[in-house]
Amino acid sequence: MATQTLAAWTVSLSYPDLPEEVIHAAVRSFYNIAGCIVGGSRHTATTTARNALSPFSGPPTSHLLGTDTSTDAMHAALFNGIASHVHDYDDTHLDTIIHPTGPVACALLAIIPTLSRPVSGPEFITALVAGIEAECKIGMAVWPAHYDVGWHITSTTGSIGAAVAVAKLFALEAGKVAHAIGLAATQVTGLREMFGSHTKSFHPGRASQNGLLAALLAREGFTSSVEALEAKRGWARVVCSGGNRLEEEIAGLGGSGRWEIVRNTFKPFPCGIVVHPVIDGCVWLHGELERVGVDVADVEEVVVDVHPLVLELTGKTAPRDGLEAKFSVYHSGAVGLLLGKATPAQYKGDVVLDRRVVALRDRFRAVPDEGLRADECHLVVKVRGAASIEKHVDYAVGSMERPMTNEQLTAKFVDQCIGILGEERTDKASEWCWNLEEQADMGRVKDVL
Amino acid sequence: MATQTLAAWTVSLSYPDLPEEVIHAAVRSFYNIAGCIVGGSRHTATTTARNALSPFSGPPTSHLLGTDTSTDAMHAALFNGIASHVHDYDDTHLDTIIHPTGPVACALLAIIPTLSRPVSGPEFITALVAGIEAECKIGMAVWPAHYDVGWHITSTTGSIGAAVAVAKLFALEAGKVAHAIGLAATQVTGLREMFGSHTKSFHPGRASQNGLLAALLAREGFTSSVEALEAKRGWARVVCSGGNRLEEEIAGLGGSGRWEIVRNTFKPFPCGIVVHPVIDGCVWLHGELERVGVDVADVEEVVVDVHPLVLELTGKTAPRDGLEAKFSVYHSGAVGLLLGKATPAQYKGDVVLDRRVVALRDRFRAVPDEGLRADECHLVVKVRGAASIEKHVDYAVGSMERPMTNEQLTAKFVDQCIGILGEERTDKASEWCWNLEEQADMGRVKDVL
Repeated sequence: MATQTLAAWTVSLSYPDLPEEVIHAAVRSFYNIAGCIVGGSRHTATTTARNALSPFSGPPTSHLLGTDTSTDAMHAALFNGIASHVHDYDDTHLDTIIHPTGPVACALLAIIPTLSRPVSGPEFITALVAGIEAECKIGMAVWPAHYDVGWHITSTTGSIGAAVAVAKLFALEAGKVAHAIGLAATQVTGLREMFGSHTKSFHPGRASQNGLLAALLAREGFTSSVEALEAKRGWARVVCSGGNRLEEEIAGLGGSGRWEIVRNTFKPFPCGIVVHPVIDGCVWLHGELERVGVDVADVEEVVVDVHPLVLELTGKTAPRDGLEAKFSVYHSGAVGLLLGKATPAQYKGDVVLDRRVVALRDRFRAVPDEGLRADECHLVVKVRGAASIEKHVDYAVGSMERPMTNEQLTAKFVDQCIGILGEERTDKASEWCWNLEEQADMGRVKDVL
Repeated sequence: MATQTLAAWTVSLSYPDLPEEVIHAAVRSFYNIAGCIVGGSRHTATTTARNALSPFSGPPTSHLLGTDTSTDAMHAALFNGIASHVHDYDDTHLDTIIHPTGPVACALLAIIPTLSRPVSGPEFITALVAGIEAECKIGMAVWPAHYDVGWHITSTTGSIGAAVAVAKLFALEAGKVAHAIGLAATQVTGLREMFGSHTKSFHPGRASQNGLLAALLAREGFTSSVEALEAKRGWARVVCSGGNRLEEEIAGLGGSGRWEIVRNTFKPFPCGIVVHPVIDGCVWLHGELERVGVDVADVEEVVVDVHPLVLELTGKTAPRDGLEAKFSVYHSGAVGLLLGKATPAQYKGDVVLDRRVVALRDRFRAVPDEGLRADECHLVVKVRGAASIEKHVDYAVGSMERPMTNEQLTAKFVDQCIGILGEERTDKASEWCWNLEEQADMGRVKDVL
């Protein structure tokens, strides 16, 4: 029943039904991912994929954000999807740790220019919400066992979310939406074993493409199972052997129950969420040291009390490159304290190996403390010949309790885009994306981003 | 270790190392699948996919067998792969029920015309063997639990087989072969829930494309896990929670252990293998009735003793269309007895609903018998005013014990191709495919098939 229920819900969803907070969350989700796609557009993973596959590209209808290049819709979904995730800087639905917007938005942006009509901002938002709700509800149905066994839940659910969103954009009838869901469900992409390699960011890109492909085939009449999610050997049971809550979660789709998109959060720092409290505290301490006139060279030691999981996941003491640095609470804290920020630039190889960063990193001491939550930490900076400075971070910026403000999202967007688009285009792009609700033609993305 | 072992084995495999029986099996596997691809090229599933995706196609380098159309390599792998499986008429590695040749051969045929050099028959055979050995060994490592839980093992292993074959064709170094294996392993396509819909044949098509994509990305330097198959959260454990025999199977790759391709069998009838003994017996009885001069209209009853599984899987008494007829031992037996054959033509709607077929079908009685093997059956034809005629089928044609002869494969090939290619081209194509070992340029497939 879940498959048919999801299909019927998708068909019936309309923009006027969306509560204001849902539209607000959709605009922020789009704004954030647009900056991430531009920011990831020149990463090696993205350009390697482009180079490998350009000989097979079709009509260049669809824009690759952050470049002056277009490609066919199918490849655009892949490349933009890779870019959206490649800095680990996108967004997080904390209840499932799905990064929901990339797979869905990239499929929509890719296919829109191929349609014979303009797609408005509100229509885009409606399809985006449909896709994100689908992925998050399905994800909650199998969380956490599905993730624990080794699936990258962002892409395994992302294929289905992208299919639902594109099916909505195509205004398919419910029967065909169900076939699209089945076609997406059968393409189960993403093993966590790939974390630490380019293939991690391939996952949301391929999910975007899987979902787009599913909707295109279903539109043409290609058939699938219409019980793909819930059947005895359907998606939920095959990818999560220990039971699932599929029917309950799908029955609670937005309108009947909770909207998931309002629980989406945005990453202030391009690394795993578990290090965010430490970075947040160190960035604050950077300002505080400046304010009281202490030179970082005089810092003797930084003691960081953290939840034990932080050391388990990010305990690398001497990272050798940007990727390893993402798994180092020491590097992440050091750049926060020394430079006052942790953006993708602070995870580049030259910064990771910078003499001053390494010196400060080596003065960090992390202490596991069972009494702290994973999103909490306590910092003490010991200064030569001066009083120590302390900071307690109760909830990191970017959490549900301290969501990133629109101003912070703007700063993140500008930081990612300015070196690629230039100042003038970045400002215009930022304004355009914030005004998503007012846009008459989403195909204009190619002129803007 | 399995991933690296497979990669190293792939690199070291060479044509002179292949025993004669392996080459013989490879030629027969290629010959059989070539006919199946042509035969499936006009099926609705194949044409629907082509229609849906043609707007996204790139440079038309790669031939769609059985048509006068070409498309880009990526889409050619998909479409030819769908066609290869759509009549359930391909081949079967009985130890795993993998249909191994389609995903591998379609990836190779698709990419070959894009290379700047000709690929010879022996080079093609070597890559084909590499891919088929990879899929079957990996399949045996997780069989039967992986299939039982609901995965379509043909495509879940087919992605990896296709990646290995294309990596071999590209002569990638072992490190890159490992990355290709990882990229393929992370795209786990194929739920058995899709059986009975177009999506079943989508699976080997998408597997072919997944593997081709993986090899292309790895060639360009895209990175993956180099322990993708065996890691704690690698492919084998994620897709088969109850334990696996990965290291043993991979350690026994051809040369060190058994060659799997010599255990590949070819389907004499376009339906599940469990009905084959009944069809085989009925086809024999058709000839026998003719010989003794009995009119089928005088057949009062056909009693078929079968293994209980036959009724469980193919017990449909009144199929309404060709797809349902594949799951009807009654229809399958009736066309065998009435028409003396069961090819794709006998599973078309008009035959399924034909008055004479229905009348004879309704005179079949199937009796489950625990004492029979699944590949065995006993038939008694009761004739009005004459002695009954009996037939015991110990092993069906197409089994390991009674493999299809080259003559039978030729008849199957001709039957599939003649209505599409015409008589003259079919004869030439048959000869060309049988002479695979002698071919200097596999790109000529476009002129032949």
